[in-house]
Parts: sequence; C-alpha cells; structure tokens
Amino acid sequence: MTDQQYMELALEAAAKGAPNTWKNPLVGAVVVKNDQVLAIGYHHHYGQPHAERDAISQLSKKQLFNSTLYVTLEPCNHTGKQPPCSDLIVASGIKRVVIAQEDPHQIVAGKGIKKLRDHGIQVELGVLEQAARRLNQHYNFFYTHKRPWVCLKKAVSYDQQLGYLGQRTQITNQAAYDCVHQERSRYQAILVGSTTAIIDNPSLLTTANTDFPPIRIVLDRRGRLLQHLKIKVLTDGLAPTWIFTENDNFLKVSLPDFVKIHKTNGDSIQAVIKTLTEQELQSLYVEGGRRVAQSFLQAGLADEVLTYVSPEILGDGIPAWQENKNDYQYHFSALADNFRIAGYKHV
Amino acid sequence: MTDQQYMELALEAAAKGAPNTWKNPLVGAVVVKNDQVLAIGYHHHYGQPHAERDAISQLSKKQLFNSTLYVTLEPCNHTGKQPPCSDLIVASGIKRVVIAQEDPHQIVAGKGIKKLRDHGIQVELGVLEQAARRLNQHYNFFYTHKRPWVCLKKAVSYDQQLGYLGQRTQITNQAAYDCVHQERSRYQAILVGSTTAIIDNPSLLTTANTDFPPIRIVLDRRGRLLQHLKIKVLTDGLAPTWIFTENDNFLKVSLPDFVKIHKTNGDSIQAVIKTLTEQELQSLYVEGGRRVAQSFLQAGLADEVLTYVSPEILGDGIPAWQENKNDYQYHFSALADNFRIAGYKHV
Repeated sequence: MTDQQYMELALEAAAKGAPNTWKNPLVGAVVVKNDQVLAIGYHHHYGQPHAERDAISQLSKKQLFNSTLYVTLEPCNHTGKQPPCSDLIVASGIKRVVIAQEDPHQIVAGKGIKKLRDHGIQVELGVLEQAARRLNQHYNFFYTHKRPWVCLKKAVSYDQQLGYLGQRTQITNQAAYDCVHQERSRYQAILVGSTTAIIDNPSLLTTANTDFPPIRIVLDRRGRLLQHLKIKVLTDGLAPTWIFTENDNFLKVSLPDFVKIHKTNGDSIQAVIKTLTEQELQSLYVEGGRRVAQSFLQAGLADEVLTYVSPEILGDGIPAWQENKNDYQYHFSALADNFRIAGYKHV
Repeated sequence: MTDQQYMELALEAAAKGAPNTWKNPLVGAVVVKNDQVLAIGYHHHYGQPHAERDAISQLSKKQLFNSTLYVTLEPCNHTGKQPPCSDLIVASGIKRVVIAQEDPHQIVAGKGIKKLRDHGIQVELGVLEQAARRLNQHYNFFYTHKRPWVCLKKAVSYDQQLGYLGQRTQITNQAAYDCVHQERSRYQAILVGSTTAIIDNPSLLTTANTDFPPIRIVLDRRGRLLQHLKIKVLTDGLAPTWIFTENDNFLKVSLPDFVKIHKTNGDSIQAVIKTLTEQELQSLYVEGGRRVAQSFLQAGLADEVLTYVSPEILGDGIPAWQENKNDYQYHFSALADNFRIAGYKHV
C-alpha cells in the first residue's frame, strides 16, 4: 500500500472520535512495518490519550522498532492533559513519521516536527493534507484566524420568508429538521436572539450522542428573558446556557447552575466572539432570528451560510436575511422535497 | 381485484403510448370476466386503433359476452381516423363499462357514455379519475380551456441569472440538461425568441424516441433570422420549424420544406396561441429568452413555471425573469447537485 492509502486508514480512524473530542482535533494514527498494519489508533475523547499513544500502546518495543507512523496531525510537543506525543515517538523506536498536516495551534505549530527531526526521525509532511484539514475545519480555522468559525442557518419558504410574525412557524420538512438536529453536534455553541428563545422556545439540543452538547447562547441585551424564566433553555438542564446581557437584574434572580450570565457592555456579538475565543470554543451555529443574523453579516462574521428551503409559499411573513451571494461558494443537496444550500465564504 | 385495481392496470397500459399518441390522449383498456383479466389494450400511435379496439380485438364474441371493460377515458362516439368505439362496445356483448374520466373533447363529452347507456350497458364513471386526468394533463387542459398548456422554463445560477449577455452560457449540469431534453417530448411545440435562436443556436430536439417531435417555434417579429439562415432550426430538418414574423422578406428567400412562415400582425404571442389552438396542438414549452418569457407572464399565459438552478454564481449576467410566486404551487426535486423547481398555477 502507498503512503496515501495508509493515511486514508488514519483519517477513517480519526473520524470515529466525533463528536466527543470536543475542543480537541480529530486525529488518527496507523503504525506500519514491512507493509503490514500493526496498529490503528485515534483520539477517542477529550482528555483521553492522543491518537499516537492509542496506537503505540498496542505494540511492543520490538514491533515498533524501525516502523513507520502515519498520523493525521502533527504530534504535540507540550504537556497538556497528556504528556507530549513527540517524546513518546522518539522513545518508541519508530523510524519514520508521515504527517498529513502541521498543527496550527501555536503551542505545537512545527515544534513537534522539529523535535522528531532533531532526534533523527525521518518526517514527511503533507500526505492527504487537504482531507485532514477538512476533517478539523473548525479547529484549523480557529487557530489560524484566532476566532470561532461562524455558520448562519435559516429555514425559509420558497418565497424567502422565515415565518409569520410573533408565532413559531414550521417551514421545512422532517428530513431538514433531523439534519439540523444532527448538524448542531458539529458545533461547540449555538446562538439565538431573545425573540427566537421566547417565541420558538427551542431546546437547541442535538440528537447526536455527545458528552459535550453545544453551549446554548442567548443574546438578550435588554433582559427580556427575565419575564420568561420558564423557557426550555433556562429550565431543562440538558446543556449549558449562556446569556449575554446588559441587564443587571439577571444577577438578582435565582437561576440553575447550568445557566451562566455574561455581562456585556455594547456590542454583544463581539462579546460572544471574544468569550468563545478565550474559552477556545471553535465554532458557532447561529439559528436566528433575522436581526441577529444580519448583525453577524454586517460584522463580516459569517464564514458559512446555510439555507434550508421548502417549496411552500408564505406570502406575508417575515422576509429572510440575505447574504451577498458573490461572497460565497455554494453546494446544493436535497432532503426529500426540501433543499439544503450551503455557502462557504471565499477566502 | 377491485375496480380500482383493474383501472390501475388500464392506466399503466395507457402510459405505454407516450409520446407517440401525439395529439390523441393516452388511453388504456382492460377486459375482465369472472375476476380474470382477458385482455389489455392501449392506444399505441396517433392514427392507429383506440385502446378499446386494441383490447376487444384480442377476444372472441364468447369471451366478451357479459364481460366488464375498464377504460381510462370515455369511449369516442364519432368517426375520426377510426370508427366509433361506442358502436364497437355495443356490438361486443360487454355488459358493464367502468370509465375513469369523461372526455372533455366537445366531439365526445358525454355522448359516448349516453350511447352505451341507451343500449342497456351499465356505465360507471370516476374510478381513479384524478390519476387519469393527470395522465393527459395537457389534453384535458386544452379541451377545457380551448388553448394550449404553456410551460415557461429557465436555467439559472443561484444568483438568479440566465447567463452572460451575447454569449451562450451553460449554467446547469448534465442531469438537468438530460432532463430538459427528455421533458421536451411531453410537449407538442417548443418556443424561443430570435435572440436565443441566434446566440444559443439550439437544435430544440428531444432525446425521447418519438415520431412526432415538438414543432420548433421562433418568434422573429423583425426578421433577424434572415441574417442567420444557417442556424440549426432552419437547416437540420430534424423537426418542423415555424417562424412567426411580420417581415415579408421571409417569403422571398428559399427555405427548406420543414420551415413554415407564419405572417403575424401585432402580438406574436397571441398569434402563436391562436395557431396552436387551431391546429389542436395542446402544449407549449417556452425556453427563452427573458423578454419572451415576460410577455407570456404578462399575458397570464404561464400555467407552469420550471426553474433549473445550479449552485454557481454569475455575478454580472442577465437577471432571470421571475413569476409571482403567490400564483403557483411548487414541487422541488434534485438532479445531482442541481435543483429542479416546478410551479403549477393555482386554479
């Protein structure tokens, strides 16, 4: 088999870690000697051993001697929740390391590769690099741009309306609904405005099996939720909820432990981005409403735009927000009789 | 089996006649006695025997005696290219006739049923009527509204543009292209404006195997085609071509036999509709360009609007025409990474 083929095995293994590696990247590792795969490992769970250790720990010193390690991301060189993988590799007897992509995280960023080379290990970089980058799209974006990847999602009728004013309107079909509920698990936070939180009263949960459900963020500058303390995201306890507000009265009411108040002063969108960045939360799924989405667009903070479209015509509903289509590249897919349109910003 | 189930067999048989029954409706017939299907027939080809005759001719007098005939359209009662089916049925010994829908054609319209009943045959009407009406949608529309069904088709980019000015632009994918070329066979005429005929130089043919390819109509009021006599629709001879024009010079040039000049005076769209109606051509597929489509919309002559959409962004092309979405009911389907959006006018 070729280097590419072994790296494909490593990428497949890496994908198994989703969504439980949470803030950590998905990483896979394969140990090969004499054209035989000796071990396959991956990062299973946030806080647990890295992929390299998962693979290497399956093998004896003798097996590892003179072997090749395929790993989808540069091995770490720092002590975090785990000791550095670079030291483990150096000590293992592995002769050659093939890496798909360098780690953009400043704490690694080439230092892992340097350590290996300094110890006489042959290192090759860039095998299936694009596929590896795609696998950790949000992670790579975050450590390159120093802010979370933002996706704006809307569900619209064919006449581009979001629903009727002041009432929850189910526009798209069950397949689109299921897709959204699954899709949320790929994000570390989900954001809505206070109007959406009150009128739609969504739970903002994902159907994926995850130990790290996305944090539910509500923008509530004026403190309207104080009149609606029984809504799901303030009572169900099924995921953390963060409220960004200028209203001090939130500090005076009794709220469950899973609800956290973030006091803002001025632009709440920038406050959210700053807080997520500080917390190393790498992705944000914005679900509405219209005003919130438009603020993100105006701030140039919409890396991805997602539109679910149904064939219905509402006629006199709320017009949907519109991105500048020239800024994006689109991909279409169908969900039964609904469409999914994903736009990725040109970079 | 139930009446519905026998009628389903008749409908399935009827569909086999497409597209070669041309101006005639698709019709299927099933003869049943003692819960046994004795014969299945359908109208195979314009000018050939009707479905009832196709089924009855397979059976003996004895077999037909006391049997039930299921037929998807009211039997005819006039002598056209074929003698009347009602006489044949009366003479056959058939006891009971189950009919899906009455024939809207004024030459039949209940007279076939009356003849059968007058001769003591038990007649039931309306079994799977909706399915039968759908099968001959254009035929039914034509004889009800006394004009052809008009479908406006466009292919657009995701930013709703038809292409770049003055050049042929391929926007949609191969699957959409194939779908259009197949779809044309369901129409009896295809229409384009002179700009489309000159710039795109389309052949306007169908890939379906048909003895009656749609007539290709070009609207050319001023006679611009006189400077472009080498375009495909004026030279290939693969289907009839009709030019609607005010320009007398067409009568002075030598044109092949398959090209027919229709002299107009004023509104060429109304002239086309009038001519097609006189010729009993029941359906028209309008393929562009923008001005032509808008004229049909303004005249209220757009019973169906079809949009093929690709995920591409053109940016500075020709804006597409837009129907009033409130007037239509939509159905979505996907063609690989392109979408097909069909709108049917509310009636």
